[in-house]
Amino acid sequence: MTSIAAIVLAAGKGTRMKSARHKVLHEIAGRAMIDHLLASVEALGPERLVTVVGEAREQVQAKLGERSAFAVQEPQLGTGHAVLQAQGALAGFEGIVLVLYGDVPFVRTATMQAMIARLEAKDAPAAVVLGFQPDDALRYGRVIADKAGAISKMVEYKDASADERACTLCNSGLLAARADELFALLARVGNDNAQAEFYLPDIVNIAIADGRTCAVVTTDTPDEVAGINSRAELAAAEAQWQQLKREEAMADGVTLRAPETVFFSWDTEVAADVVVEQNVVFGPGVTVASGARIRAFSHLEGASVGEGVEVGPYARLRPGAKLEAGSKVGNFVEIKNATLGVGAKANHLTYLGDATVGEGANIGAGTITCNYDGYFKHKTTIGPRAFVGSNSALIAPVTIGADAIVAAGSAVSRDVADGELRMVRAEQLVKPGWADRFHDAMKKKKKDVSGK
Amino acid sequence: MTSIAAIVLAAGKGTRMKSARHKVLHEIAGRAMIDHLLASVEALGPERLVTVVGEAREQVQAKLGERSAFAVQEPQLGTGHAVLQAQGALAGFEGIVLVLYGDVPFVRTATMQAMIARLEAKDAPAAVVLGFQPDDALRYGRVIADKAGAISKMVEYKDASADERACTLCNSGLLAARADELFALLARVGNDNAQAEFYLPDIVNIAIADGRTCAVVTTDTPDEVAGINSRAELAAAEAQWQQLKREEAMADGVTLRAPETVFFSWDTEVAADVVVEQNVVFGPGVTVASGARIRAFSHLEGASVGEGVEVGPYARLRPGAKLEAGSKVGNFVEIKNATLGVGAKANHLTYLGDATVGEGANIGAGTITCNYDGYFKHKTTIGPRAFVGSNSALIAPVTIGADAIVAAGSAVSRDVADGELRMVRAEQLVKPGWADRFHDAMKKKKKDVSGK
Amino acid sequence: MTSIAAIVLAAGKGTRMKSARHKVLHEIAGRAMIDHLLASVEALGPERLVTVVGEAREQVQAKLGERSAFAVQEPQLGTGHAVLQAQGALAGFEGIVLVLYGDVPFVRTATMQAMIARLEAKDAPAAVVLGFQPDDALRYGRVIADKAGAISKMVEYKDASADERACTLCNSGLLAARADELFALLARVGNDNAQAEFYLPDIVNIAIADGRTCAVVTTDTPDEVAGINSRAELAAAEAQWQQLKREEAMADGVTLRAPETVFFSWDTEVAADVVVEQNVVFGPGVTVASGARIRAFSHLEGASVGEGVEVGPYARLRPGAKLEAGSKVGNFVEIKNATLGVGAKANHLTYLGDATVGEGANIGAGTITCNYDGYFKHKTTIGPRAFVGSNSALIAPVTIGADAIVAAGSAVSRDVADGELRMVRAEQLVKPGWADRFHDAMKKKKKDVSGK
Repeated sequence: MTSIAAIVLAAGKGTRMKSARHKVLHEIAGRAMIDHLLASVEALGPERLVTVVGEAREQVQAKLGERSAFAVQEPQLGTGHAVLQAQGALAGFEGIVLVLYGDVPFVRTATMQAMIARLEAKDAPAAVVLGFQPDDALRYGRVIADKAGAISKMVEYKDASADERACTLCNSGLLAARADELFALLARVGNDNAQAEFYLPDIVNIAIADGRTCAVVTTDTPDEVAGINSRAELAAAEAQWQQLKREEAMADGVTLRAPETVFFSWDTEVAADVVVEQNVVFGPGVTVASGARIRAFSHLEGASVGEGVEVGPYARLRPGAKLEAGSKVGNFVEIKNATLGVGAKANHLTYLGDATVGEGANIGAGTITCNYDGYFKHKTTIGPRAFVGSNSALIAPVTIGADAIVAAGSAVSRDVADGELRMVRAEQLVKPGWADRFHDAMKKKKKDVSGK
Repeated sequence: MTSIAAIVLAAGKGTRMKSARHKVLHEIAGRAMIDHLLASVEALGPERLVTVVGEAREQVQAKLGERSAFAVQEPQLGTGHAVLQAQGALAGFEGIVLVLYGDVPFVRTATMQAMIARLEAKDAPAAVVLGFQPDDALRYGRVIADKAGAISKMVEYKDASADERACTLCNSGLLAARADELFALLARVGNDNAQAEFYLPDIVNIAIADGRTCAVVTTDTPDEVAGINSRAELAAAEAQWQQLKREEAMADGVTLRAPETVFFSWDTEVAADVVVEQNVVFGPGVTVASGARIRAFSHLEGASVGEGVEVGPYARLRPGAKLEAGSKVGNFVEIKNATLGVGAKANHLTYLGDATVGEGANIGAGTITCNYDGYFKHKTTIGPRAFVGSNSALIAPVTIGADAIVAAGSAVSRDVADGELRMVRAEQLVKPGWADRFHDAMKKKKKDVSGK
Repeated sequence: MTSIAAIVLAAGKGTRMKSARHKVLHEIAGRAMIDHLLASVEALGPERLVTVVGEAREQVQAKLGERSAFAVQEPQLGTGHAVLQAQGALAGFEGIVLVLYGDVPFVRTATMQAMIARLEAKDAPAAVVLGFQPDDALRYGRVIADKAGAISKMVEYKDASADERACTLCNSGLLAARADELFALLARVGNDNAQAEFYLPDIVNIAIADGRTCAVVTTDTPDEVAGINSRAELAAAEAQWQQLKREEAMADGVTLRAPETVFFSWDTEVAADVVVEQNVVFGPGVTVASGARIRAFSHLEGASVGEGVEVGPYARLRPGAKLEAGSKVGNFVEIKNATLGVGAKANHLTYLGDATVGEGANIGAGTITCNYDGYFKHKTTIGPRAFVGSNSALIAPVTIGADAIVAAGSAVSRDVADGELRMVRAEQLVKPGWADRFHDAMKKKKKDVSGK
């Protein structure tokens, strides 16, 4: 197998995004564009990976860290110039180089492999271009090629003849070539054009002029080469991703009551026979086991939902929420870094943070784990079958024993033993008639105020 | 009037659903498919109803109970074979038999009546087939018929000639015939085909070969004969149902700010001049009176909302919630099996369960009715004009009298008389400077920890 | 510059709305239709504004108050008759009169100006009609005109010849003319038609018969002349408005994760580099500064969100909520008429009403400001860096000092000094084994009950 290197172009920050953030760091399905692309690249097992950075490069470098080498393009003089900056970082590399774009994040690994395979064939061309057939070819550059994929010419739309424009095979910009050929050809690319830029596709025309063959590989899913340059394109890419993921989930046996209102993340895993109601948002890191029901208006991130669990409506599961089989989280309940044991329930208006709740325990409405003292987080442990009365505050670190009962309205600051009742409640102060007198006084005052 | 019997085919569990649940039990608009169908059938006043079950039949039988007789088809050898299994259950029945499908749930009663009427006419045919003209005839079986609806041939797509395929009148599968004819013809159907199955439409061709007339009745709403075999088709049927219901609601004078975000149930009743904001989910059993406003992100099930009531945003009304005229339920409030009297208010972060709240009472933010002791549910009664201070816990069974006041933060475990003030609150413990010393100590500790 | 007067026709209440409310008072994007229209009219700086009212006129008059003069049309005998009613209110006015419709609310100021400009030109016509070219001309009245816009005939669809119907330039109903010409022509309009109504467009045909020129100005955005006569049309107008606003926001650098789930109001201002997640509703009066993140399921009205603030998920900001830079409002939190200082946090299940929270303060989960005593609202002041423990009730009027700490579960009814600890908590009552005995007794009782 030939060694593979990938060059990812990410020097342009993206003016049309109108953002202080580099465009490749904007997210789709809860993951930065560049991460979507790198995941597909890494599946190839590349020997080298070079990201060409320029504007706001500290952001991209901070994001990728050790995952990529970097080459700086400064100033930015076109795609050919960009690729050339990676030459140093690829010194000594002798295999096939793939040129990719940070803002074209959804190119599939299989497509990259098809481009590589073409270069590994006996009649290997000097370069392989990835072409696509969009519904509307618009002003894309054209790839003029025969049916076998042999290119006769790469042409920019503005320079194309009417016949050339009638050809709807377009240039995605992606390209593969052997490292030595790539850089030798690039060295010959000039910038004699209106923008005075060095264009990568020119190497194809140069190779052809040398009598070499260049080939086009055409994707059958043109959406994978869509570039994302504005917030509208970002939203469109997100919508398309969600649509595919929803169809996939339904095909796998998940009921989506209103698919268009369910939003997944790139790594969401939902088992068959899960019902997802309307308006559910899955952030990253969620798994849902079979038979669970995710009710309307729920929001899940970093959570594990066990078999037959009922979540919501209006449940918020935050990272570290672990709901064991048959447990239940109801409305206006937030769970963070906490485990709810088998069959345990927290049905209403509750915050469980940094906690462990034992099997079959019942957490009353309005219960709050006071896990933070302004400086440190502390842990609450609630035993199996414990009953925490409504409106209680559990002041961590604290342990509530097995089968223990906390009376409603208690602020518990010391451990409660197994089978013990803990009640923290003042005397019932009774003032007969006081409310009647208060109403009289207030009504009079209200009249006085409004009378002014 | 002729006696009617209906045979509902529901032997196949539905492989493409990938579900442990039988497909006819999956829900659309909060009601199982089979219930949608049976409601339309029952409107005919049928003398007999036989459901043909097979796979997972215990589920279907448990669901329908006394509403239907059952015939078991085991193994499943085609639609003709399925109908034949119902013969025993229809012993002695002499009227018209309608053959329906559990996974074709939206056939209208009027359509069934049109099929029956054709059989009651003087020139009654041997059988009546329900045809439809889909936008795209795809691979449906074709009904070759003249303009008057006299069928010359029923043909499977795969066996159809080019001319026959060009005919776009398709076979829905629904059929009606007199009981004696139906079973006599069925007895003559063979299984000499690739699948070795007995096909119901074959009776039409047999009757025609006998020189009998068979007729097609064509629906003008082809969507009613759509079959539901996958989660995607389930979602599509739900979407279509919701779309019709939304249009109907708007035509009836309901404002839907964003119709596509409002989800009704099969039995939702919303009066004119109700405003429904964005993202509202109506579960089964909800009625809303005129002038009410259902604010965004509200979720209602089994609730009755009176005139001029304001609900939400973020209100959850559960079964038994009854909001009388002019009352108000605000954000993050859950009401279950509770009545809110005329003009009463529960505006924030409250749980009212198993409660009665009198006219004009005010329930403060964070109020919880503690209705459950881990074993039994208990009732809370709040009198007219009572004022329950914020963050109070009302420990049921308990009564708060008319005009009574519960001081904020009280856990009330004994009844409060009319006009009385109840305060359950410990002394205010004051520790001057303590917080300053705590901050100093903690900042030091935090530094020590991070310094390690 | 010529003086401008506008006549707004709003005599019909709108039968198809099925509403007790006059149709021009129904809202789109949080603003009554009539207000949308008047905002565009007022941008012209008109000398006079007359609204012609009829049915439910007290509603329209109450809404517009001093902004408009009123003329009553009673009974309603057609558009020509309606305009004629405004003659008295325009006595002495000598400029150009624009005729507008209260239920055609989105006509742009620029379009009105184009109509006026045509009347100010040297070859001024007797009247200017606003035409539009819809995708489907349906049964709209036609404007028969030459390419230069000179009208030869105004014709109702029902009276039009096949050739005239083939002309797709339609009459929007909007019209402009000099006051003297308008009323002189109107006086000559008859009602010799099936409905016995006086039609405004007749003045054009009368002027042409006099040998005068009349001109059509054609809008290039036909949607602006859409009339709203039913709840479905109201919803469609809302959807169209939202779509434009979303595109505008994205073009301005706002990330909308799922644009179709974000609902703006007419005056929402969102800065660049704000991220708005799924299912967010902006009511009127909201501004959001750069770098803020509005998480899913949030609802904002009358709120100001500072730089880098995080809101939600499930946050409700009500009028007067002011979140200063870097502050944070988490789930199930309601903020009303309250300021959250720089970096302050209210992360869970909290109600802050009529409050000021100092810089860096931390409001624990379940905190409630008890701002209402049933008669008056009172204010809560929380100092910088104060720490309010979970489940506390702050009984206003009350002040919590700088750096002060309120212990969890406290109901604070007296001011807390700077650096002080306030704890309001009863003794921890410990009953060993009590819970075990309770469980035994209850299990027995439960068995007894179910045994019956």
